[in-house]
Amino acid sequence: MSGLPKVAVQGAPGCFSHAAARGLMGELELVPCRTFQQLFDAVATGRAELGIVPVENALAGAVVENLDLLSQRGLPVVAETYLRVEMCLVAPPGSRIEALTAAGSHPVALRQCGDFFARHPHLRSVVAHDTAGAIQELMEGRAEYDAAIGPALAAELYGAEILQRGIEDHSNNYTRFLVISGEGEAGVRGEIGKATDTAGASPTRKASLSFTLPHRPGALHAALGLFAAEELDLTRLESRPIPGRPWEYRFHADVRMDEGAGFDRALTALRALSPEVQELGRYREAEIPGVSNG
Amino acid sequence: MSGLPKVAVQGAPGCFSHAAARGLMGELELVPCRTFQQLFDAVATGRAELGIVPVENALAGAVVENLDLLSQRGLPVVAETYLRVEMCLVAPPGSRIEALTAAGSHPVALRQCGDFFARHPHLRSVVAHDTAGAIQELMEGRAEYDAAIGPALAAELYGAEILQRGIEDHSNNYTRFLVISGEGEAGVRGEIGKATDTAGASPTRKASLSFTLPHRPGALHAALGLFAAEELDLTRLESRPIPGRPWEYRFHADVRMDEGAGFDRALTALRALSPEVQELGRYREAEIPGVSNG
Repeated sequence: MSGLPKVAVQGAPGCFSHAAARGLMGELELVPCRTFQQLFDAVATGRAELGIVPVENALAGAVVENLDLLSQRGLPVVAETYLRVEMCLVAPPGSRIEALTAAGSHPVALRQCGDFFARHPHLRSVVAHDTAGAIQELMEGRAEYDAAIGPALAAELYGAEILQRGIEDHSNNYTRFLVISGEGEAGVRGEIGKATDTAGASPTRKASLSFTLPHRPGALHAALGLFAAEELDLTRLESRPIPGRPWEYRFHADVRMDEGAGFDRALTALRALSPEVQELGRYREAEIPGVSNG
Repeated sequence: MSGLPKVAVQGAPGCFSHAAARGLMGELELVPCRTFQQLFDAVATGRAELGIVPVENALAGAVVENLDLLSQRGLPVVAETYLRVEMCLVAPPGSRIEALTAAGSHPVALRQCGDFFARHPHLRSVVAHDTAGAIQELMEGRAEYDAAIGPALAAELYGAEILQRGIEDHSNNYTRFLVISGEGEAGVRGEIGKATDTAGASPTRKASLSFTLPHRPGALHAALGLFAAEELDLTRLESRPIPGRPWEYRFHADVRMDEGAGFDRALTALRALSPEVQELGRYREAEIPGVSNG
């Protein structure tokens, strides 16, 4: 027993999810998982107390698999956090960028660094399983490339040197994560609440919910009207198909709720309208990055 | 000049997009493209007169890349159609299923046939680039598998025998396609209109549009209210991130519009609310499959 919270992530140690978890909770014991399914399993079975799950990226949009898993598994959401996705060019200490020949990373990360490769035509891009894994393999001498692209945290963990930071085309690249908790882990949830307090987050509270609607003209408008009537800000709305019920949808919504009374009234009204309402969790709103231009 | 409409699809001849195009238009001259980007290019440059684009699958949800391309490229949408995604086990004529050892297909198709593989443990699944391509390679003797899984149309085109139809886990699997047209191709659009008439589609008309909204509490509710006020049925709503503007969204909506006057009023009102409204096209509604249970 390390006494540190056990936190499940999808990815290798040093991945962006790991960095997001550290930003929110500080020291932790990592439970790395190969798939998101396995991450939810780890939290459901108690192998991890918490899980940190990417739900939206500012460039790519919703991580739909995780929206589906959140409503299928019903594990309570206890916190949210944002991470700037900053790509670093890393190599063994003492390397010079002009002398490098190939950089390995996940295909999506490579695509996000197109301008960098155009400016460094002597560098080949090589596809790897994931960003942190590429850095790990590079530093363990198991890679076909002499540089890698990934998170600063992975460079630190595996002893690589960061040759250049922020090599992605769009610096406005953020990912939003939700933290899920095992059922009845009230103590752990308290810890997260404290961690978020210390981080100086705004006192605003948010709720995540999912609901289905009868297919009727105006049904969605009527549902959103219940929140508008209470002057609650809907920060996000996503729809997902329901397997076996073609062209019916499950909606995922995030709502800013300040004090809870108005939200409770809206939720009660929504239950009269929707065959299936699921409250996924209430949590403190994290500071939203990248909106200074708005 | 064959006189047949030139229709761009993403995929090899015989792919599901090809089958959808044939269902809508009958005989056509296929312009196969490797990527969706290239499909839109083919239509924009006139190499193809029309393009058929999957926008939503009843199990997987929106094909978000194509929603983005529709609003980026602004090529007019002139028709919609649905296709049941039916997976067939195919092999060279005379094969017996018990004697086969391995079936090749696209990973998504293989995953959709999990129950079939569980019932036939002697059959290995082998990953291939695409479904129609797997059947083509099989029949040209270039494959490492002795069977393939894919569309009936590809079996027909490449001379394979269909050993079993509908081997997918969920028979309720449909894909919705939109047809895009080159600018100013009024003649071709007329053809599509006629083709749809002959197919006995309902006389209801639909419109596809995309719009952004200021980030203000209740903005989405207000926008949807404009359609509700005209008693217009919103059949679909998707939101997509706007690159470089984190946490702002572009909404894609499909609206049933019957006669156009109410829709025109709603659109005018929407332009007062939204910084950017794009009408993607108006077209005849296709019959919606798989809703008999609703």
